[in-house]
Amino acid sequence: MQDQSQSVLANGPDSTDISHSETLRAQVCSSSELAFLMEAHDGLSAAIAERAGFKGLWASGLSIACSLGYRDANEASWSQLVDVVERIVDSSRLPVLVDGDGGFGNFNNARLLARKLRQRGAAGVALEDSCFPKINSFVGDRHPLADVDEFSCLLRAVKDTVADDLILVARIEALIAGHGMDEAISRAHAYADAGADAILIHSRRTAADEILAFARAWQNRLPIVIVPTRYYQTPVSAYRKARISTVIWANHSMRAAMAAMRQVCGRIIAEENTASIEPEIATLDEVFELLRYNELARAEERYLPELRC
Amino acid sequence: MQDQSQSVLANGPDSTDISHSETLRAQVCSSSELAFLMEAHDGLSAAIAERAGFKGLWASGLSIACSLGYRDANEASWSQLVDVVERIVDSSRLPVLVDGDGGFGNFNNARLLARKLRQRGAAGVALEDSCFPKINSFVGDRHPLADVDEFSCLLRAVKDTVADDLILVARIEALIAGHGMDEAISRAHAYADAGADAILIHSRRTAADEILAFARAWQNRLPIVIVPTRYYQTPVSAYRKARISTVIWANHSMRAAMAAMRQVCGRIIAEENTASIEPEIATLDEVFELLRYNELARAEERYLPELRC
Amino acid sequence: MQDQSQSVLANGPDSTDISHSETLRAQVCSSSELAFLMEAHDGLSAAIAERAGFKGLWASGLSIACSLGYRDANEASWSQLVDVVERIVDSSRLPVLVDGDGGFGNFNNARLLARKLRQRGAAGVALEDSCFPKINSFVGDRHPLADVDEFSCLLRAVKDTVADDLILVARIEALIAGHGMDEAISRAHAYADAGADAILIHSRRTAADEILAFARAWQNRLPIVIVPTRYYQTPVSAYRKARISTVIWANHSMRAAMAAMRQVCGRIIAEENTASIEPEIATLDEVFELLRYNELARAEERYLPELRC
Amino acid sequence: MQDQSQSVLANGPDSTDISHSETLRAQVCSSSELAFLMEAHDGLSAAIAERAGFKGLWASGLSIACSLGYRDANEASWSQLVDVVERIVDSSRLPVLVDGDGGFGNFNNARLLARKLRQRGAAGVALEDSCFPKINSFVGDRHPLADVDEFSCLLRAVKDTVADDLILVARIEALIAGHGMDEAISRAHAYADAGADAILIHSRRTAADEILAFARAWQNRLPIVIVPTRYYQTPVSAYRKARISTVIWANHSMRAAMAAMRQVCGRIIAEENTASIEPEIATLDEVFELLRYNELARAEERYLPELRC
Repeated sequence: MQDQSQSVLANGPDSTDISHSETLRAQVCSSSELAFLMEAHDGLSAAIAERAGFKGLWASGLSIACSLGYRDANEASWSQLVDVVERIVDSSRLPVLVDGDGGFGNFNNARLLARKLRQRGAAGVALEDSCFPKINSFVGDRHPLADVDEFSCLLRAVKDTVADDLILVARIEALIAGHGMDEAISRAHAYADAGADAILIHSRRTAADEILAFARAWQNRLPIVIVPTRYYQTPVSAYRKARISTVIWANHSMRAAMAAMRQVCGRIIAEENTASIEPEIATLDEVFELLRYNELARAEERYLPELRC
Repeated sequence: MQDQSQSVLANGPDSTDISHSETLRAQVCSSSELAFLMEAHDGLSAAIAERAGFKGLWASGLSIACSLGYRDANEASWSQLVDVVERIVDSSRLPVLVDGDGGFGNFNNARLLARKLRQRGAAGVALEDSCFPKINSFVGDRHPLADVDEFSCLLRAVKDTVADDLILVARIEALIAGHGMDEAISRAHAYADAGADAILIHSRRTAADEILAFARAWQNRLPIVIVPTRYYQTPVSAYRKARISTVIWANHSMRAAMAAMRQVCGRIIAEENTASIEPEIATLDEVFELLRYNELARAEERYLPELRC
Repeated sequence: MQDQSQSVLANGPDSTDISHSETLRAQVCSSSELAFLMEAHDGLSAAIAERAGFKGLWASGLSIACSLGYRDANEASWSQLVDVVERIVDSSRLPVLVDGDGGFGNFNNARLLARKLRQRGAAGVALEDSCFPKINSFVGDRHPLADVDEFSCLLRAVKDTVADDLILVARIEALIAGHGMDEAISRAHAYADAGADAILIHSRRTAADEILAFARAWQNRLPIVIVPTRYYQTPVSAYRKARISTVIWANHSMRAAMAAMRQVCGRIIAEENTASIEPEIATLDEVFELLRYNELARAEERYLPELRC
Repeated sequence: MQDQSQSVLANGPDSTDISHSETLRAQVCSSSELAFLMEAHDGLSAAIAERAGFKGLWASGLSIACSLGYRDANEASWSQLVDVVERIVDSSRLPVLVDGDGGFGNFNNARLLARKLRQRGAAGVALEDSCFPKINSFVGDRHPLADVDEFSCLLRAVKDTVADDLILVARIEALIAGHGMDEAISRAHAYADAGADAILIHSRRTAADEILAFARAWQNRLPIVIVPTRYYQTPVSAYRKARISTVIWANHSMRAAMAAMRQVCGRIIAEENTASIEPEIATLDEVFELLRYNELARAEERYLPELRC
């Protein structure tokens, strides 16, 4: 049991993250309240999201790839993903749902990934029915789907491996791939049968109509998770009304960071000075505060004998 | 020889980064023109800095630590640093000067670090005369200095190992540690004797007086590199006049990203929607453009036979 | 609770390694029975030691360094060590005591190491009172000791961080460094006060006299762990009589592998053929059996739908 | 240009491995002399093979997987493979041909792998026409082949990326998969057209008949590389007569190590003592000699000032 009152880096015993999946389950599988997961792509973005008040994190494949300088096309290896997830997990006390793409191969790769994510303290994994290597859902028009039986077996293999230690979210790319609603619903049932804890239905439309139609047809057999990256105009009241379980803000910290870094680089080039940007960027004190440098200072007083004399 | 007209990820043969150190040497060791290095802490920040027009990068220890959720106190291992440097190097065509802290131990650790940085394509390494583990120069008042003879030998060991394959910058923490100008100058001479290619003189004052006094006393025996994080009000004309070689903007992309992510997280929490922030963050198309998704699309047309038929 | 009847890679749910430290504690801290830990340096050596019947493993710093092509002088980074430990842990169901050298820096590095070892499933960590970077205890005559107060505080910091999740073994290098028995005993008491669970007393003599003298003087305040690499002639009955808790066979798999590989390489060079060595090396079937390829075959039948039709 | 007279860890400047591919090319592509590559799976096995007199190394997928405790079914990620290759490369001065399996995905994954292998100093990569994830060629009867056009394009993509910086060996699994000789030859021609530098023809028969028939039909359009793991009874004179270019001893160090470790573990369990095995395993002095601890001692005398006074 993790002591939720204790910071990961706090001064005192900390415990394994055994309750992260329970915490995430309570959020995602609660029918009464809409949950929000905020994207993180490294330790810093995780710490910021926690500080801002989010209750759960989404380790985004797209954002992590961007951060690493890779493209969201399974260029980063599964173990590089796992290493980033570790930094995210260690940098906050929040449960982390990990974007596991299609599982990085077949059922055997997927269950190995799940095992490693559990070891690093993730709370859940979302697996999508795309082929390996994938390409980001918003890029191009070629998004071949995995065979429904093969992907169902892959989900079953993961479930048989990690049981309830990780929330298992099945992500359906049928609408992205241009298949119809019937295919999406049919796949959702297959994945539910295979042991998924929740269904992530993805859409690249700029309106939420597909998502809401899916929700009506699905009739809440399992909780629904959505990613309104394109259909961001829809107010969340629509999701509450549709009894959506969870909204993922999937890449907004990375995109905010990108815009800010671009702007600051441009201004420094133009001004050959940072004076004008100082008021707009985080101060070093804010950096030190967020990353808990004070905990280190306190610990030095306690554990460095030359400071105690 | 790297073909500088070729993107790292471009379609066509690319070459080893054999000229990165020459490129950096031309910048840092040119007496005629002030050079600027922009901080990078991951692949994304590197790509952004290159796109903005910077000609060289600074792989900042503080920023990389923050990105990883570590503190700038040698929490990240040397191999974790090397892995991040690889992502930075691979994400732009710019030469990268790496913040190697104090070398992560003794001379043997330092030369191993240098060898690995060379392997991953870094152009140079800056090593500082602090004790292991260090603490960030702007944190607290305890900054014990390395013995000058021991650190000189460490520099010599690195130089004997990597020769001219990496620019070797000796960073002096004497002013940070509260020693006087004489100590700083004395150390600079020792490090020059040991084979350093340039001297990084660091100061935590909010005015550049220390730096400029050092430059006067030093009389340009080797190029001077500075980090005006605290004394940012000084115009660069002062540095040109003082014949400073290189200015490092050491953490501003990270601090810009931090402020932007914090703001966006806060607004999403408050608004339960991303519509109002969309105009202020990078679009997905900008993300895809910067990370060269079009190169992948073109390559698919060339190398995926089902797309060629 | 790990289901000890289940292989790590077996077909079915597995659980976190929450009981590894309890298992190791029962071995090391049991006064009634002498325990043995066998060296492992990678996944293969771990699986072999388990199959042979050992009940616990020693992740040896020397052997891991050799395997990586490094020297036992803190050339491998702490995170590279952690990654190897993960492979060792994942490759058997045995508890693993990790050779953590001196903690890779100060108390802060040590507690970070401990936290990561816990995360990867280690059962315990041994920390020694050498300075960073260390050199192998059997190499040369320069083995400066850590300050006893500073090292005691480091142990306390680790204990305060991981509590009982890891067995904490304090390793004393006083005899290696040429200090006397009084210094060794004095340090043992200090480390016991600081929270160590057991004392590893190390000796480079070819007779066990130092070790046995230490055991007499120590009077079993805490369990004693020994490493009879040099004084291997002593029969274990002497250790049982002296109420030693645990014997570590610290590098023998690595040294056996080294001799065998050298011999096989030499013969292949000489004979330009492998026919004569085939009877002396493991068959491929033995390789596949040890690494549980049959579990993969069974899983494919279960989880690959094209095989089920 | 690497100075081949300098050890990687030697005292003095070393250089990038720019000539490793040329060295390997001279071996593999020389028609006049049969070349031998010895398996390595970690730094230690690489150093041993070099010391024994081998002139080139094979970074074996099977052996590396075993060493990591994985199965040879693409369980290890491509980046984990690259990290092991780095240890192999750094531990000897020999050129290393890397077993890259099928490229870990499509052409984009394959060229990324090749780029990273080049960066870590590999001399060549062998890519096979199996589907991802693969299973070891000697395990089971299900070895679906990659589409010949798709795999040819993958080879072309790799060649266009790394040009002559890496030797590109195309490995044909057609005989393993039960297709006939015509298919094997047809694929070899396609891969030659795509830019391969050599053809690795694999067979699981216990006689070399398939291999020799292939060699006759192929008529030496490109050099032939073989892996006589199963058909080890054949004398190499047959390969010289057939104008085979290169023989890979693909897993014998690992299998020798496995047998030796198993035997030693068993004896230690039985004897509760290591005295009887000491004469049969490498001494610590041999370990220290192979890993060049003397270089470290000499460097300490040079670079540690307290030792120079």
